[in-house]
Amino acid sequence: MADKHKLSTDPYKGVRDFYPEDERVQEYIFSTMRRVAESFGYSAYSASVLEPAELYRAKSGEELVGEQMYVFTDRGGREVALRPEMTPSLARMVAGRRRELALPLRWYTIANMFRYERPQRGREREHWQLNVDYIGEGGVAAEAEVIEIAYRILTAFGLSENQFVIKLNNRRVVPEMIMKLGEAAGKMFSTEDITAVIRLFDKKNKMPPQEYHQQMEAIIGAEKTKIIFEHYTSENAKKILQETQSGKDFFTLIQLLGSHGIKNIDHDGQLVRGFDYYTGMIFEVFDAGGENRRSLFGGGRYDDLTALFGVDDVPAVGFGMGDVTIRDVLETYKLLPHDLGSRSAPQLYIATLGEQYFGDAAALALRLRAEGVHVAVDYTGRKIGDQIKKAVKDGVPYILCFGEEEVKMKQYRLKELSSGKETFVQEASLVPILLHA
Amino acid sequence: MADKHKLSTDPYKGVRDFYPEDERVQEYIFSTMRRVAESFGYSAYSASVLEPAELYRAKSGEELVGEQMYVFTDRGGREVALRPEMTPSLARMVAGRRRELALPLRWYTIANMFRYERPQRGREREHWQLNVDYIGEGGVAAEAEVIEIAYRILTAFGLSENQFVIKLNNRRVVPEMIMKLGEAAGKMFSTEDITAVIRLFDKKNKMPPQEYHQQMEAIIGAEKTKIIFEHYTSENAKKILQETQSGKDFFTLIQLLGSHGIKNIDHDGQLVRGFDYYTGMIFEVFDAGGENRRSLFGGGRYDDLTALFGVDDVPAVGFGMGDVTIRDVLETYKLLPHDLGSRSAPQLYIATLGEQYFGDAAALALRLRAEGVHVAVDYTGRKIGDQIKKAVKDGVPYILCFGEEEVKMKQYRLKELSSGKETFVQEASLVPILLHA
Repeated sequence: MADKHKLSTDPYKGVRDFYPEDERVQEYIFSTMRRVAESFGYSAYSASVLEPAELYRAKSGEELVGEQMYVFTDRGGREVALRPEMTPSLARMVAGRRRELALPLRWYTIANMFRYERPQRGREREHWQLNVDYIGEGGVAAEAEVIEIAYRILTAFGLSENQFVIKLNNRRVVPEMIMKLGEAAGKMFSTEDITAVIRLFDKKNKMPPQEYHQQMEAIIGAEKTKIIFEHYTSENAKKILQETQSGKDFFTLIQLLGSHGIKNIDHDGQLVRGFDYYTGMIFEVFDAGGENRRSLFGGGRYDDLTALFGVDDVPAVGFGMGDVTIRDVLETYKLLPHDLGSRSAPQLYIATLGEQYFGDAAALALRLRAEGVHVAVDYTGRKIGDQIKKAVKDGVPYILCFGEEEVKMKQYRLKELSSGKETFVQEASLVPILLHA
Repeated sequence: MADKHKLSTDPYKGVRDFYPEDERVQEYIFSTMRRVAESFGYSAYSASVLEPAELYRAKSGEELVGEQMYVFTDRGGREVALRPEMTPSLARMVAGRRRELALPLRWYTIANMFRYERPQRGREREHWQLNVDYIGEGGVAAEAEVIEIAYRILTAFGLSENQFVIKLNNRRVVPEMIMKLGEAAGKMFSTEDITAVIRLFDKKNKMPPQEYHQQMEAIIGAEKTKIIFEHYTSENAKKILQETQSGKDFFTLIQLLGSHGIKNIDHDGQLVRGFDYYTGMIFEVFDAGGENRRSLFGGGRYDDLTALFGVDDVPAVGFGMGDVTIRDVLETYKLLPHDLGSRSAPQLYIATLGEQYFGDAAALALRLRAEGVHVAVDYTGRKIGDQIKKAVKDGVPYILCFGEEEVKMKQYRLKELSSGKETFVQEASLVPILLHA
């Protein structure tokens, strides 16, 4: 084939190929997430990555829908989106079966989502995300449980509590706080001002402090900016929070988390998160160590989302945790297990001393597989040394060579590749040894 | 919210929502596939569902690319496809790391793919597919292994060998056979004739016999059609097959499979499969029972696919097995386990006798989870009867009620919901009972 016509082996820009060694890491991350979520009684659900585009127009936030969403028109003229986040699909599914479903629901999924972004560290165009949601319960206990799950997943990965911090706020109280601080300083903030300030709060960590200040001045003017910078402190925010019912719940939540041993919590009055559907408690988890205190993931309460589908009164709280940031953190803190390769390798590699033994070697493998042993047979006909090399490269713990003697004697020289130790065993003894490998 | 603005709760046309009870079936199907593939030493890999559209233009077949593929242009002007099948991505990945990868590779994936079709039974627009591929080995042993994996997966699902049949052919021999039969009957088949006949072979089971006959006559004429209908019999095909090297390998393959106990095999000389990249052995598995002998899935040898990327000499053989047809077959034969719901439910449901016990109930749950027990706590504050109803609906085997007495005594009345039996136990005794549930 002429070289000039050849196709590129690169994946589509901003998405990842998972070769077996990468896939093992994904599998480790996902199975840890799954195990913790299921230990709290959560059930897995899923939906297609294709959704009607209108699903996101109402509540997913301007930047996401306008600039980052993958949208196209299908052959039937329908406007279709590649899911940029999971929550709207979840709300759609819950609303669709509101009558049959016995609330509250504890549901989780691990799903891929797409955003059109300039690929950079931690920001791929496709990532996978665990979503944990507690649906149909408006109380603080549900919020505490969801945050606890996030906490337990991080500690299950081996993170210690001083390596991350959970920042909390109440989204509903933020506009009220801006207004009250303005009033106290003798300045009226318009609805537009408030929306603009909240949008800037959300972008605060994504730009240099000076630019942040300039942008705010440009939109709401120097005087109001001064009020925000001087008076919108965590202390003032906390004070105003205490005067509301949301605020009281907020402090109950912190107390509840504390009683479960979760103390690495911080109140951040300017925490808002990007989505427009949050209605109460929101949280974000930050990497507490390293050079930059990155936001790793977050979530919150969204009580009105099913109303988009004409279904009222389904309070909900949840979070999304992405694979890219989690993998990054685990690599930074050297928390990925070293033996993922050998964990997933077959327990036995059968090398073969010639094509004439393929059938008998396959038959032995068949009997061992029936006992639960994972076995790979070498059908290459290569030199034994090359067959052993391949077994070592694949991380297989045991190997045996299959030839004339083995066919006749039905006895095997089982070699442990890590120690080089050889044991001469009957077929019946193979299984217990291999299943302990 | 006004009703007229409300969004539909339907998913995008032709794709499926997986509520927990559906997801459990998927999980059962996928874990069975995974277990068998891994028992043969296969490693999981994956790639994004988004691929450069050009990846499919060369070899995936006219109908698929021209009519069925989802293609769109991204914000950067790139032509992107939603993966309609997995093999081109696999070939891309193998070609991309040809030097580092130690061949042969045993790889599998369970991935979603999209085809724009009119949704109908067994033909969704999105389906999930197990792909098993043996890469870097041209011999019959590799083909036998791949077919054996397909066979073992079906029997692992509980299918007996008389419920399905594996039809085999050699794709490379088909044009040669058409030509030879023509020559023997004194008629020359042109290259265009042969291409047309093969395309019709592939569509044979998708239209009524009469239409099939008419279409062939319309393209290659009555005389040549008569030759195909009268002389292209399995018997003649077998005879011609025996004269070629491919044919000899073919019969060795059948012998090899037989030695592994796989006897439900049939030669079908008109089996061709739709993809243009097959170069040798192809197979398709058919439902042998029921009203219609449906093709369930298939695969074959494709030795030249990495050449698209300028990488030669990577023989490969594999198959794809879709979730929609497999689920359909398992439902038809009533082979889906009945207890999937309770298998994935938490082992214990803690009902609570008031909000004041939420904290202590959560603390008990925390201690039990640390021992590996899956526990859900009820934070609704509803009547105990309603809490128990919810536990029953969720398929939880054990429940305990948490109130004043439990806080004080640290003893629990553990109720088995299936029998109604109550046991009065200390906390230490809970774990062994629950882990046996």
